[in-house]
Amino acid sequence: MRRTANGILLKDKHILMIKKPRRGWYAMPGGKMELGESVKEAVTREFQEETGLLLEEPQLSGVYTYIIQNDEEIEMEWMMFAFSAKDYTKDLVSESEEGELEWIPISDVLDKPMAEGDRLIIKHAIERDEIMYGTFYYTPDYSLLSYRLDPSIK
Amino acid sequence: MRRTANGILLKDKHILMIKKPRRGWYAMPGGKMELGESVKEAVTREFQEETGLLLEEPQLSGVYTYIIQNDEEIEMEWMMFAFSAKDYTKDLVSESEEGELEWIPISDVLDKPMAEGDRLIIKHAIERDEIMYGTFYYTPDYSLLSYRLDPSIK
Repeated sequence: MRRTANGILLKDKHILMIKKPRRGWYAMPGGKMELGESVKEAVTREFQEETGLLLEEPQLSGVYTYIIQNDEEIEMEWMMFAFSAKDYTKDLVSESEEGELEWIPISDVLDKPMAEGDRLIIKHAIERDEIMYGTFYYTPDYSLLSYRLDPSIK
Repeated sequence: MRRTANGILLKDKHILMIKKPRRGWYAMPGGKMELGESVKEAVTREFQEETGLLLEEPQLSGVYTYIIQNDEEIEMEWMMFAFSAKDYTKDLVSESEEGELEWIPISDVLDKPMAEGDRLIIKHAIERDEIMYGTFYYTPDYSLLSYRLDPSIK
């Protein structure tokens, strides 16, 4: 089962996002957990690999289950661990293999093109400290079919 | 990948444990996540199935990666989500299919026979509110080979 760990770095009223070339969608930097890693080790390593930055005291912000389904058929299930952080050390890389890195004002980030569920995940991380749990159901083309979130978010 | 969600219910200076028949080891009630569940839904359902009790406001206490290895060969990797709760509703079942349910004084629980890693997980849940992350390496016979925990615990 795929498990990904992603970082939401909020600093000076900006959030660091990566613009993926395929769809032009913005995403939280991060990536796949490796064998034997803890989720916190994974987000720290992946975030640094993609951005150059070392997250300071990342806090778990959400634990999410993803279901990809084609009509009624379930094609894949995976999990995503979202961590938020308010500071970092090290320097931003000038280029990332995964896409274009961009500091986006927090007031603008939710208007950017991205997976609909990511908008809810980021909104939660901006607004609240407690952990959110939930499941997102997507089509193979990443159109959000439905979701359940606890606590709920609007 | 197997993912389990377990509940640490602490109430009136006791903790509810289940004594598994196979080894006579005590364990946190819980079990396997089902397709599409969130981790919080899983712990709520599994805890109620095993004990009859409905956890009130379970809080994530730890996220753990488990590696089972035979000499150098890795046989399995799974994840465990430990939730703690301080209250419940509903009634304790008189018999559980999974083992014998027992309210154990918190002062005694760490002296009971159990997987060595579980002792650290429970100790953390008793002593601290923050989330612990880590990886445990076990033999196929559940002898603890090594572990990394963040924050560390003694």
